[in-house]
Amino acid sequence: MKRIKITIAYDGSRYNGWQIQRSTDNTIQGKISAVLERMCGHVVEVNGSGRTDAGVHARQQVASFDIDSKHQPADIHAYLCQYLPEDIAVLDVEEAEAAFHARYSCRSKTYMYRIHTSRVPNVFERRYLYTYTDKALDISKMREAARLLCGTHDYKAFCGNPKMKKSTVRTITDIKIEVSGPEIDISYTGDGFLQNMVRILTGTLIEVGNGSLQASAMTRILDSKDRQMAGFTAPPQGLTLMRVEY
Amino acid sequence: MKRIKITIAYDGSRYNGWQIQRSTDNTIQGKISAVLERMCGHVVEVNGSGRTDAGVHARQQVASFDIDSKHQPADIHAYLCQYLPEDIAVLDVEEAEAAFHARYSCRSKTYMYRIHTSRVPNVFERRYLYTYTDKALDISKMREAARLLCGTHDYKAFCGNPKMKKSTVRTITDIKIEVSGPEIDISYTGDGFLQNMVRILTGTLIEVGNGSLQASAMTRILDSKDRQMAGFTAPPQGLTLMRVEY
Repeated sequence: MKRIKITIAYDGSRYNGWQIQRSTDNTIQGKISAVLERMCGHVVEVNGSGRTDAGVHARQQVASFDIDSKHQPADIHAYLCQYLPEDIAVLDVEEAEAAFHARYSCRSKTYMYRIHTSRVPNVFERRYLYTYTDKALDISKMREAARLLCGTHDYKAFCGNPKMKKSTVRTITDIKIEVSGPEIDISYTGDGFLQNMVRILTGTLIEVGNGSLQASAMTRILDSKDRQMAGFTAPPQGLTLMRVEY
Repeated sequence: MKRIKITIAYDGSRYNGWQIQRSTDNTIQGKISAVLERMCGHVVEVNGSGRTDAGVHARQQVASFDIDSKHQPADIHAYLCQYLPEDIAVLDVEEAEAAFHARYSCRSKTYMYRIHTSRVPNVFERRYLYTYTDKALDISKMREAARLLCGTHDYKAFCGNPKMKKSTVRTITDIKIEVSGPEIDISYTGDGFLQNMVRILTGTLIEVGNGSLQASAMTRILDSKDRQMAGFTAPPQGLTLMRVEY
C-alpha cells in the first residue's frame, strides 16, 4: 500500500457538501470514493482536509487515501478525470509520505467569501457570489472588526454546531478585505475553522458594515461564547476554500 | 419619444439565442422586450446589434429602442434590473441620438471563442468553454491559417445558412490566438459575421491545429464558397460576444 495525496477543485453548487452522508450519495467525498472503489474493487477511505458545507466551493481542497502500490499517480489521475463529473476536477495526484494525513497534517487553510454589492448581476460568476444590496457596507468599519476577530480565541459564538463538545479555540492569522468594483472579497486564513464559522464571521462583518453592529462589539461577542450574539450565517454559495497548507 | 441605447451581458446557456421566435419566449430579446412592455403598457421593439445563437454568451451586447420621453435612463435601468433574470444583466442605459440603431450603426464587433484543452476540467468556467482533447493543437499553424482568413472576403463557405440571399462579403480585421495554460482563446474582430460564422471559423482553425486541414487550404476554402469545404461548427457554449463598437 502507499499513501496518495490529491488536490481537487469543485463547484459545490449541486452537492450536499464534502462529507459522505448515509442519506445521500450526492457529496464530493462520496463521488471520489465511488470512482476509487470502481478502480480498486474495494472501498477506499478518502480523508479530506476538512468538510465544506453544502453549496460551498473549493479551488484547492486536499484529500489523502491509501491504495495498492501497483497504482501509479498518473493512472489514478487519468481514472479520476475520466469518471468524475465535470464540476469536480482533480488538479494533482502525488505519492505522499506514510505519515501524511490531509486533515491531521494540515497547518493552515484560506477561505474566500465573495460579496456582490450591485443590483446589476455578475452573470458569469453569479453561482460563486452572495449578492447583498440592502445597505451600503462601510469597509473601514468591517476592517476594524476583522482585526479584532483575528488571533487565538474561543470562537464558540461563531460555531454553527450548538452540540460541539471538542475545543472551539482556533487561531485566525489574517482576515483580508479587498474591494474590486462592486465586489467585496473577504479572505480568512487560520489553523482551522469550526462548522459554519467562516459564514458566521462573514454575516457578522456584513452587520458591522451595514451599521447593525459596532466593530468594537467583536470582543464582547467572542467573550460571550453565545451564537445568538454574532451575526447571521451568510449563504454558502459565496464561500470558496482557496488553499490548504502543510 | 426618445431613443435609448442599452448595454447587456448574458449567460446564454439556458436561452434559445438572442432573437425572438414565434415558437418560444425563451430568448434574450424576448425577456428584455417583455420587461419593457410591462413597464410601458405596450409592445417595445428592441433591436440588438445582431443575433447570437442558442447557448452563446455576451459580455457586451448592445440594443436600442424607442420609449416615451417621460422614462429616464436610470429608471429604465432599475426596472430592467428588478425584473430580468439573474443571467441577463443590463450594464448601462443611456439616451442616444435619434439616428442611432444598434444594428445599422454598428462599426465592428469582437467575439471570443474559448477552447479548453485539458482533460482536467475548469470547474468554474466550464459553461463558457468548449473542451477539446482529441489531439494536440498546433498554435503556429492555426495562426498561419488565421492570417489567411483575415481581410475582405466572400465568407459563403463559412456561413451556416445555405439559403442566405444577401451578400456574404465581410471584413475580418483581426483574428488573435492567445494561449493561457490549458486554454486557447481565439478573438475575432470584424464589421459583421454571418450565421454560425465564428463557430465555423473556429471549427476550421481546430482542424488546422489537429492536422486535418492545411493552413494553406484557407484560400481554397474561401474561393470555393462551399460550406462542405470548411471545418465543423464548433459548439455554442465556447463563444462570447465581447464588444460592439459604434
